[in-house]
Amino acid sequence: MLLGALEAGGTKMVMAIGDEKGKIFEQVSIPTNTPSETIPKITSYFKEKHIDALGVGCFGPIDLDRKSKTYGYITSTPKLAWSDYNIVGSLKSALSVPIGFDTDVNASVLGEAIWGSIKDLSSGVYITIGTGIGVGVYLNGSLLHGMLHPEAGHIFMNRHPEDTFKGVCPYHPNCLEGLASGPSIEKRYHTKAYKLQSNEKVWEIEAYYIAQGIVNLILTFSPHKIVLGGGVMKQKQLYPLIRDQVLKLLNGYIKTPQLNDIDNYIVSATLDDKQGILGCLELARLEYYSANCSSF
Amino acid sequence: MLLGALEAGGTKMVMAIGDEKGKIFEQVSIPTNTPSETIPKITSYFKEKHIDALGVGCFGPIDLDRKSKTYGYITSTPKLAWSDYNIVGSLKSALSVPIGFDTDVNASVLGEAIWGSIKDLSSGVYITIGTGIGVGVYLNGSLLHGMLHPEAGHIFMNRHPEDTFKGVCPYHPNCLEGLASGPSIEKRYHTKAYKLQSNEKVWEIEAYYIAQGIVNLILTFSPHKIVLGGGVMKQKQLYPLIRDQVLKLLNGYIKTPQLNDIDNYIVSATLDDKQGILGCLELARLEYYSANCSSF
Ligand SMILES: Nc1ncnc2c1ncn2[C@@H]1O[C@H](COP(=O)(O)OP(=O)(O)O)[C@@H](O)[C@H]1O
Ligand SMILES: Nc1ncnc2c1ncn2[C@@H]1O[C@H](COP(=O)(O)OP(=O)(O)O)[C@@H](O)[C@H]1O
Ligand SMILES: [Zn+2]
Ligand SMILES: [Zn+2]
Repeated sequence: MLLGALEAGGTKMVMAIGDEKGKIFEQVSIPTNTPSETIPKITSYFKEKHIDALGVGCFGPIDLDRKSKTYGYITSTPKLAWSDYNIVGSLKSALSVPIGFDTDVNASVLGEAIWGSIKDLSSGVYITIGTGIGVGVYLNGSLLHGMLHPEAGHIFMNRHPEDTFKGVCPYHPNCLEGLASGPSIEKRYHTKAYKLQSNEKVWEIEAYYIAQGIVNLILTFSPHKIVLGGGVMKQKQLYPLIRDQVLKLLNGYIKTPQLNDIDNYIVSATLDDKQGILGCLELARLEYYSANCSSF
Repeated sequence: MLLGALEAGGTKMVMAIGDEKGKIFEQVSIPTNTPSETIPKITSYFKEKHIDALGVGCFGPIDLDRKSKTYGYITSTPKLAWSDYNIVGSLKSALSVPIGFDTDVNASVLGEAIWGSIKDLSSGVYITIGTGIGVGVYLNGSLLHGMLHPEAGHIFMNRHPEDTFKGVCPYHPNCLEGLASGPSIEKRYHTKAYKLQSNEKVWEIEAYYIAQGIVNLILTFSPHKIVLGGGVMKQKQLYPLIRDQVLKLLNGYIKTPQLNDIDNYIVSATLDDKQGILGCLELARLEYYSANCSSF
């Protein structure tokens, strides 16, 4: 089976060809411009390869409700050219193959669930901390959608007592993304985040917010594993700070074997930054089978 | 089919006999004392009725992992006589019928999902605001457990600017339960909560915290319905205050048809305070079938 994978991001589109075992044969990437410019490049790439199905992990918010009239649309994104854009429809009319569709972070958590550190577990969350903060959720063997899809990057925070920065989220004065995304670090300190590596206070505050977010995810989803990715998490000194702070904030309220072994509970993405594109392959595989089933 | 239902609470045990259609034939309640005093009363009640299966919705934390050595135990509860108590084991050895077991709030959300306001929806959460704050979660047609089970009553809050009360949770200075449970209201104002009905500031602050909790649940679970119950929610003036505050805090970030019709999205429990015991009947029914399946 030849499967296509598309990681549709706000700055770049990553495309790959692979198979149902998670083998990637080739991968390319192009910048994200307007749909009329970018979509034809994507479709001509995949057309040449004669794929059997395509999986798309997409920036959001997106409509995942198959009963909705706008299923497969990117909805109210601030990237205006893509707002209310029928991405699944456009790809489908050009490619005529089954198309699996989900959020970028759900694709990542799915990649980790099938081939990475959530393998053999029935639940897990993936948190990306980069330009934005997004959370993908895998529960009881499937991806969580619900009314819309998780937007847990925007859960509310208690401020670090020394932090007076106003945040970068235009919607919320105290949300996780507003206070802990890459751009929030860079705006707070007027410096590129990677240049702040030796400034301990930066990572203490950053870990404080990420840990609060994780605690709230433990108290809600109660996942079997928490996987962290995204540009900010390249700062490896964050991991022990986050783990300590999570235990401090939980304060013994929740007792589980997983929390007793926190180094293996809160972990870095394991798939060499391929969790997203691998998850897209799996979305393609799932859609291929569900399309063939429903034709019986 | 004759089913037994047990709502095991910290102050009382509610027992009922009913059927798989949600018809309750009789219901009684006894105070919760020690296990050695209370459990024999429960087992002798159900023994006489010759039930086919029992469903138990239990106060927590409890062990729901069927692979665990302490499956069916109440674990680290502050009610010390019940701490590390094998409630399912005790009931099973006396009754010899299949026993379904879940949290009290998961039983409530299940009751609402089968017979109440979550009927016909694929997801919903039930929040009880009483002596404690608990959250039951129904997703993709089943109850959420995960590593432990949701403990979303303890998610962290931003303080209301006028609230200097230190909270009642022994674990967390700023959690929802600590700042918004019935006892927190009563300790903050040194008065029974129902006597504060005409004090608008009380309910403004209360709604502020409940709304923050709900916003975080929307951002994580993205449920199709939010059902509120428990003693504090008898203050009906809270509903419009909560709904307004939820929309204010979300600040337009999430757009869904459900949020556009918020009076039907955030609702009061509909089953006349029977959602819990009805959910226990359904737990019994599910366990009866799964026990009979596994004997093939
Ligand atoms: N080495 C690094 N250390 C700290 N922060 C980084 C590093 N590399 C990238 N970032 C931050 O991560 C953000 C980019 O996130 P990334 O996950 O790479 O992309 P995106 O979220 O756009 O997919 C940048 O805003 C930057 O602030
Ligand atoms: N009419 C009322 N108005 C406001 N608060 C109430 C009312 N009745 C009960 N409460 C509060 O709810 C709490 C009891 O919650 P309830 O849900 O009835 O029981 P439990 O949580 O123990 O199962 C009490 O602590 C009290 O503060
Ligand atoms: Zn936000
Ligand atoms: Zn607490």
